[in-house]
Amino acid sequence: MQLFLGADHNGFAMKAFLAEALRQDDQQVVDTGDEQLRPDDDFPQFAQSAVQALLAATDPDAKVILICGSGQGMCMAANRFKGIRASLCWDADEARAARNDDDSNVLCLPARFIDNQTALSIVETWLATPFAGAARFKRRIHQLDELPE
Amino acid sequence: MQLFLGADHNGFAMKAFLAEALRQDDQQVVDTGDEQLRPDDDFPQFAQSAVQALLAATDPDAKVILICGSGQGMCMAANRFKGIRASLCWDADEARAARNDDDSNVLCLPARFIDNQTALSIVETWLATPFAGAARFKRRIHQLDELPE
Repeated sequence: MQLFLGADHNGFAMKAFLAEALRQDDQQVVDTGDEQLRPDDDFPQFAQSAVQALLAATDPDAKVILICGSGQGMCMAANRFKGIRASLCWDADEARAARNDDDSNVLCLPARFIDNQTALSIVETWLATPFAGAARFKRRIHQLDELPE
Repeated sequence: MQLFLGADHNGFAMKAFLAEALRQDDQQVVDTGDEQLRPDDDFPQFAQSAVQALLAATDPDAKVILICGSGQGMCMAANRFKGIRASLCWDADEARAARNDDDSNVLCLPARFIDNQTALSIVETWLATPFAGAARFKRRIHQLDELPE
C-alpha cells in the first residue's frame, strides 16, 4: 500500500517516527514534505502536496497521513478536495469508525496532543480496518461528492 | 451570537440537549435539522443546511455545531465549503486550539464517543475562545481559501 506522509513543523518529528515505523513494516512510504524542519512553514501546502499525490496515484488503496499541531488545519485543507475523506483521529476507536463508516482515505493526527506510540497505534488500526461498504455508507459518500462548493 | 445546530440520527439526542442548554444560556439557537429522529437519515444534508445558513448569516460571529456518530462525516461535509473551517473536537484543549489557531467557525462533535456534559464543556470552551489573529494564522487561513478544488 502506497502511503503519502505530510506534516508542518509541529508534525515534523512525528512524521519521521511514523515513516520509519511504517517502512520497517514494509509499507511503501512517500514523504511529501516538509522536507526539513522549518519553524514557520504552513500546513496547507503540505496537505495539498500529499492529497494531490493521492488523487494521482494508480494504487486504489493508496492513502495519506497528515500531521500538524492540533490536526485541525490539515483536516480542513484536505477536505477541500473532492474525493478526499479526511478524518482527524485521536484514538483507535475513532480511526476504526472513520474507515468502517466513511471509507476515510486521509488520516490527520494532532502531534501536540498525542505521543508517537499512540499515533502509531491509530495508524495501524486505521490501515487495518476495511470500509464496511454498507449501502447507506456508500450513499452518504456519494452525497459528499455531490455537495456544492 | 447566532448558533446553527445540525445533526443526523446519531447526534439527534445530543443536539436536543445542547440546544436546550445553549438557550438557557441566552444564545440564539437555530435548529437546522434533522427535525425528528429518523434512524436512516444522512449527515451530508444537515451539514449542508447548517453551513449554508452560516454563510448567509449577517451576524459575523455566527457559528455552527454539527453532530453525528463519530463526527467525521460532518467534518468532511462541512469542510467542502469555501470559508468554512470545521473542527472535530473531543476535548476542551482541542476546541481551544481550533478557535485560537484556525478561527474555526464550525464545531463537529462525536456523539458516540463523548457524553452530553463533555460535549457541553467542549462547546463552551469553543465559544469562549477568541481567534488569536496572529499574522501566521491569518496567512494559513488565506491559503485554505486559495486551495484548488
